[in-house]
Amino acid sequence: MFITFEGIDGSGKSTQLDLLANYLEQKNKKVIKVREPGGTILGEKIRDLLLNFPMNSRSELLLFLASRAQLVDEIIKPSLKKGYFVLADRFTDSSIAYQGGARNLGIDLVENLNSFATDNILPNIVFFIDIPVNIAITRILKKDRIEKEGKNFLEKVRDTYLKISMKKDNFYVIDGNQDVEGVFLQIKNIVDSYLDH
Amino acid sequence: MFITFEGIDGSGKSTQLDLLANYLEQKNKKVIKVREPGGTILGEKIRDLLLNFPMNSRSELLLFLASRAQLVDEIIKPSLKKGYFVLADRFTDSSIAYQGGARNLGIDLVENLNSFATDNILPNIVFFIDIPVNIAITRILKKDRIEKEGKNFLEKVRDTYLKISMKKDNFYVIDGNQDVEGVFLQIKNIVDSYLDH
Repeated sequence: MFITFEGIDGSGKSTQLDLLANYLEQKNKKVIKVREPGGTILGEKIRDLLLNFPMNSRSELLLFLASRAQLVDEIIKPSLKKGYFVLADRFTDSSIAYQGGARNLGIDLVENLNSFATDNILPNIVFFIDIPVNIAITRILKKDRIEKEGKNFLEKVRDTYLKISMKKDNFYVIDGNQDVEGVFLQIKNIVDSYLDH
Repeated sequence: MFITFEGIDGSGKSTQLDLLANYLEQKNKKVIKVREPGGTILGEKIRDLLLNFPMNSRSELLLFLASRAQLVDEIIKPSLKKGYFVLADRFTDSSIAYQGGARNLGIDLVENLNSFATDNILPNIVFFIDIPVNIAITRILKKDRIEKEGKNFLEKVRDTYLKISMKKDNFYVIDGNQDVEGVFLQIKNIVDSYLDH
């Protein structure tokens, strides 16, 4: 099973991913955690470019996709084949929200490019941890190139995530504006409902 | 005017590009030379990844495209606007020949991705310097990751270039298996015919 965590930085998605990993491991599931951009030697090199060098929106998207294609072939596909639960900190919906929505490249265009990069691999569950942008901003201490875009940019990212949620059944909007345990309870219940099937 | 030089490594395309640059400068034209991958700070970083790190074919294509998108926005478009002759050592047709043809990603797919990366900028003239693979191999001394692919791979690259030549009017196949002056005379005559119009 392939589960992705989405949201603006400061939403708490990485914390929730770790909690779910621990929970699944306690149930004797094999778990692997990955992050985007990165997760492979090539991907970490690309991550460094994305966070630190100036570039246009099309290059930014193409670099995220290059990192993703390598992650899919090197880690995600082989791990799923071996029966692992793959938990990803960001995946295709980040590109749709950030580059498709907030950078105005278009949702449909990014969906098409995602399909090429991922070789059509799709997550079984997406958790979008939703918090108001004002709260997210107070939580982020160290800002990289993309996080420096500011409030309006992050509002567009959030709006696009919410747009995606209307179109996809397995895309769960989780209210991130509560304590860590409250957020995790919602996530756990949804994952449990998939495990019971 | 935007002129690109294509061919397998060892074809002599870079030498011909330099000769054309000198020729145009003698005619008091403003000339700028670019190379792919690279040509910008971001592009040179991407070049380093492409030449030195293992990766799958989709990541390879996406990295070439990321470098190209930055080159288009940062150098090619602004230079063309200012009236420069832009001479490029490799451009979109390299992706079609190497990743579309030799790596089997498909010519049409790569054409579509090229359009996105270049924001639909097209060269006015493409010079494909064609030499037999056996001869090219003897000319290449230092091989990078892609050049190490071997003879069969380069034969597929060459075949794809020849396929492209059937479909595009401004794509000139130049016989590179002659002395440098002979090759350049052909190129010069074609460029002159464009300048006279």
